Amino acid sequence: MIYLDNAATSWPKPPQVIQAMADFLRRGCANPGRGAHIMARQADEAVLNTRELLAKLFNIPDPMRISFMPNATMALNMAIHGVVQAGFKVVATMMEHNSVLRPLKTLEKAGIIQLELIKPERLGEISIQSIRKEVDNTKDLFCMTLSSNVTGSIMPVAEAGRHCRANGVIFLVDASQGAGVIPLDCESMCIDLLAFSGHKDLLGPQGTGGLYVRDGIKIKPLVQGGTGSYSERLTQPEIFPDSLESGTLNVPGIVGLGKGIQFILDTGISNIRARKQQYMKILFENLEKESRIKIYSPHPEENSGILSFDIERLDSSEAGYLLDKKFGICSRSGLHCSPLAHRSLNTHEKGLIRLSPGYFNEEIDIDLAVKAIQGIVRGLD
Amino acid sequence: MIYLDNAATSWPKPPQVIQAMADFLRRGCANPGRGAHIMARQADEAVLNTRELLAKLFNIPDPMRISFMPNATMALNMAIHGVVQAGFKVVATMMEHNSVLRPLKTLEKAGIIQLELIKPERLGEISIQSIRKEVDNTKDLFCMTLSSNVTGSIMPVAEAGRHCRANGVIFLVDASQGAGVIPLDCESMCIDLLAFSGHKDLLGPQGTGGLYVRDGIKIKPLVQGGTGSYSERLTQPEIFPDSLESGTLNVPGIVGLGKGIQFILDTGISNIRARKQQYMKILFENLEKESRIKIYSPHPEENSGILSFDIERLDSSEAGYLLDKKFGICSRSGLHCSPLAHRSLNTHEKGLIRLSPGYFNEEIDIDLAVKAIQGIVRGLD
Repeated sequence: MIYLDNAATSWPKPPQVIQAMADFLRRGCANPGRGAHIMARQADEAVLNTRELLAKLFNIPDPMRISFMPNATMALNMAIHGVVQAGFKVVATMMEHNSVLRPLKTLEKAGIIQLELIKPERLGEISIQSIRKEVDNTKDLFCMTLSSNVTGSIMPVAEAGRHCRANGVIFLVDASQGAGVIPLDCESMCIDLLAFSGHKDLLGPQGTGGLYVRDGIKIKPLVQGGTGSYSERLTQPEIFPDSLESGTLNVPGIVGLGKGIQFILDTGISNIRARKQQYMKILFENLEKESRIKIYSPHPEENSGILSFDIERLDSSEAGYLLDKKFGICSRSGLHCSPLAHRSLNTHEKGLIRLSPGYFNEEIDIDLAVKAIQGIVRGLD
Repeated sequence: MIYLDNAATSWPKPPQVIQAMADFLRRGCANPGRGAHIMARQADEAVLNTRELLAKLFNIPDPMRISFMPNATMALNMAIHGVVQAGFKVVATMMEHNSVLRPLKTLEKAGIIQLELIKPERLGEISIQSIRKEVDNTKDLFCMTLSSNVTGSIMPVAEAGRHCRANGVIFLVDASQGAGVIPLDCESMCIDLLAFSGHKDLLGPQGTGGLYVRDGIKIKPLVQGGTGSYSERLTQPEIFPDSLESGTLNVPGIVGLGKGIQFILDTGISNIRARKQQYMKILFENLEKESRIKIYSPHPEENSGILSFDIERLDSSEAGYLLDKKFGICSRSGLHCSPLAHRSLNTHEKGLIRLSPGYFNEEIDIDLAVKAIQGIVRGLD
């Protein structure tokens, strides 16, 4: 089996991720922040360790402003429902995932916000010119992905961040696709809210993710409950990270995520990126030659590691099925939970086939994938 | 180390829980419901398997009405915020955890609901008489825990459920404390909404839990996002479990939870309960003799497995500290995120020391705990 679906979830994980999770579960996995005994303290330390590693990776000044979430969807919902006030003017891009679009559309339908969506360029790129045009100082919130989960195009986060800061607009970045491959610096990029997934390029397990909220950004928690702090109070505490972290955390998952991030810090983001780019180059060079294939992803330099394409006269789900059944290749076909992205690419009827290599693929995987796709295309003759 | 904090999180887990999680992460842990390749289908099957085991354990007619959540807090928030409509009259008990009280108080403060709280008896029991009195047919929602996380008292869920059904009141049960020890039957107990935690007596890992919503109960999702279904739509799908399951699930955690539930089904709830009762008896018989100890938990037959007590002239956190430091015993002291429960027991100033044995404790653990507590008490002379 050749796994080329890392944009959905990365696989394999570094072995130490799984080892640490199993060890932690075996040795004793108590609830952090809710007891003074030794196992509870060990859980506290493990959670803090991952918080600090995340702060290092994303250049976040205060690790306590990072709240753990079960996934990026929850982080994005916390961010959007948490900062939006009645009458907010919100801008997002058409390249956003449903985890951004559906909460925004829910708020728009309820008459709470006004929503504008920026149209992308030909391969899903969002230009800084279009951001400058739409996100003026009458707007309240701008939501943008770090990189498209459909085309892989990398968005101009740093420029957008500086523009938002200068115009008093809250800037929310969905880093699900790209964090761990594209360097992120919350300080210099003027990021107010960063939502991330733990199980993609951060190499942690599913069930992890988080939200960074810059000091000074007002946010009300979507979920209220036990925090282990201020137990005597019937209102949600306002301190961070407790305010947004009700209920028992996924401690073994967070321990695993810590090992994933440690692996990234040890390996170096630029080395991870370089290897992904190498694989992307092989895919591009070979598939561009096929007259029946149309590629919808920008070249490797402007791409976080996704190659999406269409095969003439073949439905994307049919192509995905053939890749799996005949060649043992895991890809992802369809709309990738991003309907407006596909609509703007005009691929919403057939969908696209998405290949997303990972750091742990080998060159032979990529070569075999190329041969498999060439075989499918030629079989259509 | 002697672990007597199973009411916070159970430990140890059955070895097959950890083994299955590690195997699943190693072999390939794709996203369920979001792709057609073999690893995605394996994830699908694994998630469905746990859903079916839960349905069996709780006698839920349709497993697809169970949505996985990161913890019981999220499940309770989904339930409460999801079913409440403006003007709802809600009743809860003072024995509820902050994961019920804080969302309800948030809604009350916002003027959305009217809230009444039922006062407990001497050891945290809620009588069916007081439920019948407060929960009349003018009420819309009744929230009750299956068992108090402070005193262990078991609530009259079956009688309350029948009463609610007869009076057209939605019945939400917080089964965090007790599920896996106290038999639950959603059908015969007339439970409309069941929120549960996966990492307590269900013996799964942290990061798991869920919400059962009976067919016919209207609920709007608190979180919107990618569901892998109806990707083309910008609104949240209404089908179950997708409607309440946005974002990538904690698949390895759910796999582990499945093994925990399988262990319970194989062992038999009555055997698990019997062993817990045996340990509780030893604790009761010995600690009742101590004149300086006041017990705030009902006897084992009416108790899910918690013994909470106060030591005269000793703060609960000090007692917990001594148990940990001097005797290596993990207990839980303080308010247990249930401030009104402690207020009604009049223990809110000192808090209580809570011991909660688990199925994997041995009798020697309990004997040593008794000796340790006797030692602390005598040391006060």
